[in-house]
Amino acid sequence: MWQLYQFPLCPFSRKVRFLLGEKGIGYELIRESPWLKRDEFVDMNPAGQTPVMVDSSAPVILVDSQVICEFLEETVDRMPLISGTAVHRAEIRRLVSLFDNKLYFEVTAPLMNERMLKRLVHRQAPDAAILRGAMKNANSHLDYIDWLLDHRRWLAGPVLSLADFAAAAQISVSDYLGGVDWRGHENSREWYAAMKSRPSFQPILAERMEVILPPDHYDQPDF
Amino acid sequence: MWQLYQFPLCPFSRKVRFLLGEKGIGYELIRESPWLKRDEFVDMNPAGQTPVMVDSSAPVILVDSQVICEFLEETVDRMPLISGTAVHRAEIRRLVSLFDNKLYFEVTAPLMNERMLKRLVHRQAPDAAILRGAMKNANSHLDYIDWLLDHRRWLAGPVLSLADFAAAAQISVSDYLGGVDWRGHENSREWYAAMKSRPSFQPILAERMEVILPPDHYDQPDF
Ligand SMILES: N[C@@H](CCC(=O)N[C@@H](CS)C(=O)NCC(=O)O)C(=O)O
Ligand SMILES: N[C@@H](CCC(=O)N[C@@H](CS)C(=O)NCC(=O)O)C(=O)O
Repeated sequence: MWQLYQFPLCPFSRKVRFLLGEKGIGYELIRESPWLKRDEFVDMNPAGQTPVMVDSSAPVILVDSQVICEFLEETVDRMPLISGTAVHRAEIRRLVSLFDNKLYFEVTAPLMNERMLKRLVHRQAPDAAILRGAMKNANSHLDYIDWLLDHRRWLAGPVLSLADFAAAAQISVSDYLGGVDWRGHENSREWYAAMKSRPSFQPILAERMEVILPPDHYDQPDF
Repeated sequence: MWQLYQFPLCPFSRKVRFLLGEKGIGYELIRESPWLKRDEFVDMNPAGQTPVMVDSSAPVILVDSQVICEFLEETVDRMPLISGTAVHRAEIRRLVSLFDNKLYFEVTAPLMNERMLKRLVHRQAPDAAILRGAMKNANSHLDYIDWLLDHRRWLAGPVLSLADFAAAAQISVSDYLGGVDWRGHENSREWYAAMKSRPSFQPILAERMEVILPPDHYDQPDF
């Protein structure tokens, strides 16, 4: 049985959980707060980051969300999410990297820092200017997603792919933290409603991080 | 014919060039300075980053160094660099991600910012405290590489892999910028000497970025 080390608002762990859900792979959640730099955790992953996925019977330790996703794609045939020609696979991976890197650093990470870490760990008030910057960046990323969806059924092309789940992972955490203003983004909103309705998304929307509560619309199918 | 948009000190472009060299794939270099945010370049890559690899006859546009590497692994059989079992491939990709992300953000990026961008673009003096921090981080990363090489012939295991080239790409740029102190890192030094002697490395070591010159030991086989 796989064990996934994560915390409820880690977007990279959400990406992995979507994939596990879509492929129908069972797993157990283990709560890990990477900012505590627990010795046993850093021994498993010297980078000190979640997610880490472990099969202690094998034993196998998989580190980094994209490493885990590529591993699952290579070893589990059901519901392929990096599929198609080499060029199409490159387009899926380009968007995954855009969401895992740019969207994360420009939107999700500052929101997590200001609204989660400062509250839970540093006991400081959030910096309003940083929050405004992150929400402005969120708006630009939604503009780009709107544009993609003007040309395509799903983000990377005609079929649902890991790119959709990578985007939904980042956006769902940002939305939980009140950083997403959906007004004026009809394409993105329709796409995100379809993502929210997937069975792999439901258990994640139902989870809560202690102390920090999401806005009312967060887990609603209509928002 | 592939065209690679890059600049001499972009570590991610170096990673791709190592792979192209090892696989014997011809390509043409196109100089791109991503900080200029040239319109035609941002049209190709909305993330505005190098490397981008283009085959204008197809046409195919590949964005992001790891996307390009996975594409080349899937389409060119010669000299596989992400090979072995799924678990071994995961270990290669874990290290690639460690070097592309952690080593880049903690070492290469601050060095590039202080010693390259501040000089070429902002006409400012480097910040000595940031440089010291980056060099201290470089030391920790070399400690980890020393430790890997205590247990393995190459960084990810018994065979040369993309992990070695991802590390060499970051380290070579940091070394060019005077950020690497090799003293006390005999394992890393021996490994890096072997990397430097590869034909795929030679043309890259011979290149210079305008205005900024590397230390004397930079392109020496003994250092
Ligand atoms: N490239 C990694 C990024 C993982 C990551 O940044 N995780 C965050 C939590 S969302 C973390 O552990 N941060 C703590 C740290 O970087 O020290 C992946 O895709 O898994
Ligand atoms: N994940 C990307 C990172 C590329 C990257 O950070 N490139 C730098 C140059 S070394 C860049 O273009 N920076 C300009 C910017 O981010 O605006 C890859 O692996 O290709």
